[in-house]
Amino acid sequence: MQARSQSSLQISLVGSWPALDRAEPINVDRRRTMTNKRMILSAFFFNPQGDHRMSWRHPAAPKSEIFTLDYFRRLASAAELAKLDAIFLADHVAIWDSYESNVAHYANVRLEPLTLLSALAAVTHDIGLISTASASYTEPYNLARTFASLDHISNGRSAWNVVTSGMNEEAMNFGRDGNIEHAFRYERAAEFLETAKALWDSIEDEALLFDKESGFFADPKRVHRIDQSGKHFRVRGPLNVPRPIQGHPVIVQAGSSGDGKTLAAKHAEINFSLARSIEEGKQNRADFDERLAQHGRKPESLKILPGILPIVAASRSEAEEKRDLLESLTPARVAIDLVSSWVGMDLSAFPADGPVPNLPDEATFNGQRTNLVRVRNMAEQGMTIRQIASQVAKAGTAPMMAGTPQQIADEMEAWFTEGAADGFNLMFPVLPEDWMDFTSSVVPELQRRGLVQREYAPGTLRDKLGLERPANIFASAR
Amino acid sequence: MQARSQSSLQISLVGSWPALDRAEPINVDRRRTMTNKRMILSAFFFNPQGDHRMSWRHPAAPKSEIFTLDYFRRLASAAELAKLDAIFLADHVAIWDSYESNVAHYANVRLEPLTLLSALAAVTHDIGLISTASASYTEPYNLARTFASLDHISNGRSAWNVVTSGMNEEAMNFGRDGNIEHAFRYERAAEFLETAKALWDSIEDEALLFDKESGFFADPKRVHRIDQSGKHFRVRGPLNVPRPIQGHPVIVQAGSSGDGKTLAAKHAEINFSLARSIEEGKQNRADFDERLAQHGRKPESLKILPGILPIVAASRSEAEEKRDLLESLTPARVAIDLVSSWVGMDLSAFPADGPVPNLPDEATFNGQRTNLVRVRNMAEQGMTIRQIASQVAKAGTAPMMAGTPQQIADEMEAWFTEGAADGFNLMFPVLPEDWMDFTSSVVPELQRRGLVQREYAPGTLRDKLGLERPANIFASAR
Repeated sequence: MQARSQSSLQISLVGSWPALDRAEPINVDRRRTMTNKRMILSAFFFNPQGDHRMSWRHPAAPKSEIFTLDYFRRLASAAELAKLDAIFLADHVAIWDSYESNVAHYANVRLEPLTLLSALAAVTHDIGLISTASASYTEPYNLARTFASLDHISNGRSAWNVVTSGMNEEAMNFGRDGNIEHAFRYERAAEFLETAKALWDSIEDEALLFDKESGFFADPKRVHRIDQSGKHFRVRGPLNVPRPIQGHPVIVQAGSSGDGKTLAAKHAEINFSLARSIEEGKQNRADFDERLAQHGRKPESLKILPGILPIVAASRSEAEEKRDLLESLTPARVAIDLVSSWVGMDLSAFPADGPVPNLPDEATFNGQRTNLVRVRNMAEQGMTIRQIASQVAKAGTAPMMAGTPQQIADEMEAWFTEGAADGFNLMFPVLPEDWMDFTSSVVPELQRRGLVQREYAPGTLRDKLGLERPANIFASAR
Repeated sequence: MQARSQSSLQISLVGSWPALDRAEPINVDRRRTMTNKRMILSAFFFNPQGDHRMSWRHPAAPKSEIFTLDYFRRLASAAELAKLDAIFLADHVAIWDSYESNVAHYANVRLEPLTLLSALAAVTHDIGLISTASASYTEPYNLARTFASLDHISNGRSAWNVVTSGMNEEAMNFGRDGNIEHAFRYERAAEFLETAKALWDSIEDEALLFDKESGFFADPKRVHRIDQSGKHFRVRGPLNVPRPIQGHPVIVQAGSSGDGKTLAAKHAEINFSLARSIEEGKQNRADFDERLAQHGRKPESLKILPGILPIVAASRSEAEEKRDLLESLTPARVAIDLVSSWVGMDLSAFPADGPVPNLPDEATFNGQRTNLVRVRNMAEQGMTIRQIASQVAKAGTAPMMAGTPQQIADEMEAWFTEGAADGFNLMFPVLPEDWMDFTSSVVPELQRRGLVQREYAPGTLRDKLGLERPANIFASAR
């Protein structure tokens, strides 16, 4: 951990990067394109200790301060100082405890994202607030109210990452014996979104009059019941919160299954994607452009942000040491149990150095299919259970970008300029360290190259991202 | 404390109170009792324009700023400056639109309380945050997470006002054709509370180890599935948020029906009660003490806070003018429709100056029974529909305390010292005006009398209110 003692390591960096980074001639906006297109940066986390599964064991990782607002306020301030576009919180509605190692070794506990982002809305000014919320185990009326309220409280900065809940542990917290079938979950999610959008539209922008003289608080012709009556929901409306400042919160979608992409192509405005390479990123873009066209949507209506794991260090080799340390933190049993959970069967019952047994059929699998396919692919390459476990335990499916601020900026620039990304979802392996390092060293480098913003544009999150405010279905019906 | 009471008066009242109020000799703590018992003050609202149903029409009422965080931040700051104990937000999960006048004339639209209080948690330090949330149309796992998170974010200041949802409009936003039967709602609420409490206990206080060396994040013996399996819920647990700082949020209950009181006697720590007089308040206290004893609870484990409507003015007659102005704001049709909604039948079909027709049977009534009984009592006194409507449209069921700061303090002191109240739920008729007036004029008067706190005690909301931190059911089972 030489790197750590040298740099990041001391929390916010403050001048620990090689002087030549800053001595270079500064060529403002040299890469800014004709369309003024810029890279979108979203700072992501699920574990508040960082995206690496065992980040909590890192020497620099926080302990119980992850349950205080101050901890997140500090992260949010750094992100806003660096003019990042958004903070993005992942979520599950359960503790992962199917396997015996999980509860003991995995950092399973965290604050609920909507509560946390509502609090952060009060102490930030410009940054977008992306909250994950499950369409599987909530009610559209409740969730539509919450997001509408967050949008008002934050002055138009809310975004909803629509997920379905695929873990058995989640199902069992909501009255079910096990997971809901994959296609059913996505069907429900699609109806959920339609219902929520109708609720957000149910009070038109001009509906509220506040006319003290006449006594008309609202124009009844502009306040609508939605009378949704579908397979999954019956919701009458209207919503009792005014239409969000943004019309609707920005819709984010992260699923990479066929069902997930179908939902995204119809509804999403940001896609949190997984791509291991520029080539994959470009394929993803092309695939989505085709799907978008089928819904009459233009490519620029969907911003694709692949996840990356940035590790900043004074040199590539220092970055690799840092990565190796992280990878040494995962107990073997945790890694195997993780793979077991991905494939829906207990692999600890099989010899660790032997081959993977027959895996479930993808078409009928009710967990996260992308994960099942990843394991199957590794098994087909002849990897043993232990090898796959070791691979899976490494920080996940997103590419690691480890190196100096310049090296990281080079990689990001290549992805961006080659059309493999509209920006990135930054999955920092260890928090707060990697977050602080990135904002204080990589962002200035990206700013110098004209790739990211130096100041926030005025307006809502939609305005800042160049996303249209949605038309109101009731207004356009008139 | 002469200086402070003088200066705080000037903050938003700007010297409109008779000089003699301040010229009086100040006798610090003259009424403080041996037990150091003090009056608890909670500042309440449903409509952000004030508790009077037509408050939004008042010349001083806010307009669209009620959808901004700044508006509420200003109210919260004033409350905290005055050392009030809590902010208390009511809630419904629907717009009230059964009758044609409702949408046009009634201020039906507002922010969702948990979102708003989470934001206010970030900009306040000591004041309690009481949020209403319905046990009828939410899931225990979701709500337990939210309240646990709010408790952490606020450093132990959360409280949950447990309500059931009794309006048809609410039912129809959640897949039902009409309201759920009264007893069923309360049965569900009781099981909901038991489930939420078990979830809050599911991660014991000492469960999280953060032991980086050994790799033990948690002690599995102190992390528990709850395996709730009852009539209304099946929830496995554990919760994925640490046990609230307070153990459980403070439990608040406002129902005054038999079912509501039964729930309160078992679970509540604050009761928001309705009492028209000191006598009623004392009866309420005696009734609850008996009910508490049946559950092995002591009287001091339940704080009873009757709602009052304080209107501060330079004189009694000015206060009456202010009240009369408010009462003139309700259109006749709105008042009749309000009564209709209370009794579950459309009274506009009957002559307004005639008698009330036969009302539904209380025992099988699925709305708010207390409201039905109120109307029945007025009907039995021979009041016409119009007279009852006019009465009901007046600011509700709580007593108005209108007068100078001294007169209001006198009344509050009488209720408190005679044992009719442990404090009050302050239902300001017009916001922000009445809230600002009260905190800057009545509170200093109460402080001078030693009836309310001058500074916040350290610790959580429970600590401040003298409520015990609940034992953990799993720890005590060991």
